[in-house]
Amino acid sequence: MNSFGRIFRISLYGESHGTEIGVIIDGCPPGINLTEKDFIKDIERRKSGIVGTTKRTESDKPIIKSGVYKNKTTGAPIMISFKNENQKSEDYEFDGFFRPGHADFTANKKYKGFNDYRGGGHFSGRLSLPVVAAGIVAKKIIPEINITAKIEEIGGQKNYIKLIEKTIKEKDSIGGIISCTVKNIPAGLGEPFFNSLESVISAGLFSIPGIKAVEFGAGINLSKMKGSEFNDVFIDTSGKTLTNNAGGINGGISNGNDIFFKVHIRPSSSIGKTLKTYNFKTNKMQNFSVKGRHDACFALRLPPVVEAVTAIVIADFWMGG
Amino acid sequence: MNSFGRIFRISLYGESHGTEIGVIIDGCPPGINLTEKDFIKDIERRKSGIVGTTKRTESDKPIIKSGVYKNKTTGAPIMISFKNENQKSEDYEFDGFFRPGHADFTANKKYKGFNDYRGGGHFSGRLSLPVVAAGIVAKKIIPEINITAKIEEIGGQKNYIKLIEKTIKEKDSIGGIISCTVKNIPAGLGEPFFNSLESVISAGLFSIPGIKAVEFGAGINLSKMKGSEFNDVFIDTSGKTLTNNAGGINGGISNGNDIFFKVHIRPSSSIGKTLKTYNFKTNKMQNFSVKGRHDACFALRLPPVVEAVTAIVIADFWMGG
Amino acid sequence: MNSFGRIFRISLYGESHGTEIGVIIDGCPPGINLTEKDFIKDIERRKSGIVGTTKRTESDKPIIKSGVYKNKTTGAPIMISFKNENQKSEDYEFDGFFRPGHADFTANKKYKGFNDYRGGGHFSGRLSLPVVAAGIVAKKIIPEINITAKIEEIGGQKNYIKLIEKTIKEKDSIGGIISCTVKNIPAGLGEPFFNSLESVISAGLFSIPGIKAVEFGAGINLSKMKGSEFNDVFIDTSGKTLTNNAGGINGGISNGNDIFFKVHIRPSSSIGKTLKTYNFKTNKMQNFSVKGRHDACFALRLPPVVEAVTAIVIADFWMGG
Amino acid sequence: MNSFGRIFRISLYGESHGTEIGVIIDGCPPGINLTEKDFIKDIERRKSGIVGTTKRTESDKPIIKSGVYKNKTTGAPIMISFKNENQKSEDYEFDGFFRPGHADFTANKKYKGFNDYRGGGHFSGRLSLPVVAAGIVAKKIIPEINITAKIEEIGGQKNYIKLIEKTIKEKDSIGGIISCTVKNIPAGLGEPFFNSLESVISAGLFSIPGIKAVEFGAGINLSKMKGSEFNDVFIDTSGKTLTNNAGGINGGISNGNDIFFKVHIRPSSSIGKTLKTYNFKTNKMQNFSVKGRHDACFALRLPPVVEAVTAIVIADFWMGG
Repeated sequence: MNSFGRIFRISLYGESHGTEIGVIIDGCPPGINLTEKDFIKDIERRKSGIVGTTKRTESDKPIIKSGVYKNKTTGAPIMISFKNENQKSEDYEFDGFFRPGHADFTANKKYKGFNDYRGGGHFSGRLSLPVVAAGIVAKKIIPEINITAKIEEIGGQKNYIKLIEKTIKEKDSIGGIISCTVKNIPAGLGEPFFNSLESVISAGLFSIPGIKAVEFGAGINLSKMKGSEFNDVFIDTSGKTLTNNAGGINGGISNGNDIFFKVHIRPSSSIGKTLKTYNFKTNKMQNFSVKGRHDACFALRLPPVVEAVTAIVIADFWMGG
Repeated sequence: MNSFGRIFRISLYGESHGTEIGVIIDGCPPGINLTEKDFIKDIERRKSGIVGTTKRTESDKPIIKSGVYKNKTTGAPIMISFKNENQKSEDYEFDGFFRPGHADFTANKKYKGFNDYRGGGHFSGRLSLPVVAAGIVAKKIIPEINITAKIEEIGGQKNYIKLIEKTIKEKDSIGGIISCTVKNIPAGLGEPFFNSLESVISAGLFSIPGIKAVEFGAGINLSKMKGSEFNDVFIDTSGKTLTNNAGGINGGISNGNDIFFKVHIRPSSSIGKTLKTYNFKTNKMQNFSVKGRHDACFALRLPPVVEAVTAIVIADFWMGG
Repeated sequence: MNSFGRIFRISLYGESHGTEIGVIIDGCPPGINLTEKDFIKDIERRKSGIVGTTKRTESDKPIIKSGVYKNKTTGAPIMISFKNENQKSEDYEFDGFFRPGHADFTANKKYKGFNDYRGGGHFSGRLSLPVVAAGIVAKKIIPEINITAKIEEIGGQKNYIKLIEKTIKEKDSIGGIISCTVKNIPAGLGEPFFNSLESVISAGLFSIPGIKAVEFGAGINLSKMKGSEFNDVFIDTSGKTLTNNAGGINGGISNGNDIFFKVHIRPSSSIGKTLKTYNFKTNKMQNFSVKGRHDACFALRLPPVVEAVTAIVIADFWMGG
Repeated sequence: MNSFGRIFRISLYGESHGTEIGVIIDGCPPGINLTEKDFIKDIERRKSGIVGTTKRTESDKPIIKSGVYKNKTTGAPIMISFKNENQKSEDYEFDGFFRPGHADFTANKKYKGFNDYRGGGHFSGRLSLPVVAAGIVAKKIIPEINITAKIEEIGGQKNYIKLIEKTIKEKDSIGGIISCTVKNIPAGLGEPFFNSLESVISAGLFSIPGIKAVEFGAGINLSKMKGSEFNDVFIDTSGKTLTNNAGGINGGISNGNDIFFKVHIRPSSSIGKTLKTYNFKTNKMQNFSVKGRHDACFALRLPPVVEAVTAIVIADFWMGG
């Protein structure tokens, strides 16, 4: 299922080393101003090129193919594509190794060897680019709601520049934590049980390659708390609470306080450092290292992706999804 | 949306203090042995009555209303209901307080005051009972796959009996951690992006009232790891890996190693201890405590619910969902 | 898939000869007055007992099990069930014959012989009873829109009483045509392509056992018309048109004129008259007739079912589905 | 909702006068041979250029953008696009008239005037081109099932060439009937109620602009038949029946006999002949005729579209959808 959302719905396509990737956005209301310039800021934030990120540089220029007329959304499906310009397939040809930590092995099993494995194919983190594009459209549907994701820690550190430089030198990679805060969200969005805000937001977040843990509000600390510490007592009729251990969500529904969550991102699986792993041709354990261009810390690129997923979910609920 | 799943789909109904609660299970294959006895074990595990759990005792006897003929599933929707026998609505009448940490306030906002607030109404943890029932049916679809959830910690402790007794005495409550392991799962279940195994499992888990964090594999530790530590290197052609930091999932798809995840559960919001919170009638902060029967540690009751959600997701993928 | 609808969604369960049948209605707005009395009128219209309909008499009393509190909808799923009181399973035991024209053979193939075949099991027309119940709830969501279905013809005749009496005497059955008009529907409901009003209404109609043709507006006559005859020219700014050949729908979307469609219903497959058909035990062609209680003309019972399906679809679009 | 299907799912985008139109096909199994040549035959059948069809000529060359590697499907979403090369927007600028019989008025209402109205925008029959492309992929999933749609009548005539020539001279248009036969379909595809074969096929068919009636099997004649005429008696253990009044479907499920249905197509709304209709600028009834290039009988182009929709539905059920 390449689609996500109920009323505001996105559908992805494309591979890392194909000609293009993109997204169809369905259910966007008509009359919203939208030009290709609107995408620049978040796409730049996601871009590689900064320290700790891959040297694969793409222009990442969005091309709006449908659903926009005279710079306004029409209500019809919006298709946005991005050309792949800088792929180097020779870096990735299969040579007996399924790259550890990657989807190469599982994709091979699921798709019986027919998957386009070049650069991870459809599993590539590059597919988060059209997600960011869809997120920009979503943000425009809910202009009063403010969604901000930022790096909390890299490798367990708040000040991590030196750690990243060291990691690069060691031809290794490193994980990190991103937090996200949603301000000015009205009470009443979300549903009990299967469409709880936590359920739908987490489903979106765990679709981003590399995210392996999600915690709402006080999150992992809640399992150590007492009820008398946890309970966010109300302090006025708006529903404002003294603390926000619940992360702005009770019973799956926003309570009007800030929504707050953190995601934990694993290190990149592609590292230049040598590992021992299984060679599926020779049937032997063997030294292995990944050549090519990779992120030492792709967590650095994910804040706009986390925001995008969050915006998509909230816009969908906002529209009745 | 009271439904979950694509091919194997469940739909919930009912309220804590209504006449009954239940579930329709759609898409179950025909020919599976199913009698009301099959439900006893997991329902007993979920039951209240043990130390740290509410004294509300219900028989929790499942009644199969459709979809089973001559003790075998027919392929038609299976409806399973449970009577509510022991509700005490007088404990819960609204008195100016929205209970902190509960869905009372958000349900009131969303449903404009028309929600059945008695005992939490449709938001009650009691609705996890039909989820357990659906999980038992799901487990029968995938008999060779073994799903086991267990308490890891309560209040940060591995040996927590005394802590719970102390918590009860203090009229307080306490959270906990549950882990879940899925053994003997084939490689190839799940999908990239929006139907990643992590996405769908987490969506299910976060629909369980009280779960506020989910971590797969090494989870929150991954954000502190290096790639050279994280990468689960293959050791044979089956895809078996030396470590299992990824929790058995790469690119959203099972890799054949055990699926492993942990959930963090907040303490119960209903506590006898006195808090200060806002009285929405008098518009003043005021002392407040919850009367009635509650779990001091409802995490203790959730392992079969966690297993059920996991089984439902895996059965659905197994069937092509 | 036992569910229908996107926002306003219904899920069916039950078999002709089980203990009960019913429906969960999800996504109903809160605050709508709803009591069991509201169901009487349409259920009576659907009831058997009039000339040409089966003698199986059921009280068909709806029991609201959830989602209603103090006689108002709460926003939570509404479960409505009906007891089966008058089933006579001995009429239906399998004896080598799959009843021609029935789902017995196809259900057997699909469900590998495990289907509950008694009285058609889950395939029974009796399942249209909870659909009617859901339709009543739907009608309450759109009180200003008026939906009226009525018999147009039975067996090709406008005045069909004698024809039905003759058909009963001959132990035969007869088909008919129902028309449905939706008045006071605003322009703008529906979508192009896959959720066109015609698509969703027809999907609902063809789920009613026995409906085999659906025509919108001038319907089957349109294939013989010229554009200069077909085009419904506008006569004022409201979009009112001189003719209504399109049946109130252009491009899948309501145009504010009455929606109009007709459905063609096959005769009942269960007839007392003797046919020759295949005996799957003896592997021979053989005489066959259906015993038990049947409708000579079940089309007579379907107008409230057609209205219900239409109301469900329109309520769903009304709510943004 | 621009998507259709459960497991094998298609999502459309594009407008008549935009830069391109296309479709994402999700859920296609891996390993199917697929090149752009495979699309030629059905696309040619749908093409304009023959007598009675518009002179807008497009190359209609499919470009596969994703999901295919080394000429085989990979299991990832398949994106296929078509450039719009021959649009002439000056023919269509709004001038006070909503074209009668078109979606111009309803699109304007639904999308509040922001719709791209040029050439019908997203509502254009041109969008049936990517549907045909998706149908070709679907046909490859079910190679043993044979789906054939053909013109039955145009304007009520079996031999209609002269009628069309006359219609063109009169600057008018004319409707028609298409039949479709599905051979070699196994028994057991489809579901009771909401996913009945009739429901899903009709939902697909009614998404094709211009189709206003659908009849299965003996269709509209069934409403005049007796049960003793209608019942398709079995003649062997395979489920073969003497007659096929049910059109190969009982209880929503294929019975192994040929599936047979007919669709009725209205005449094209765009005609050169002068009509009187309302001018929404001057608020007066006024003469009106459509300039530009149009089909006198677009029914002629729809057989491959009808086949495509049918193939998509059957492939989806085949895969478990």
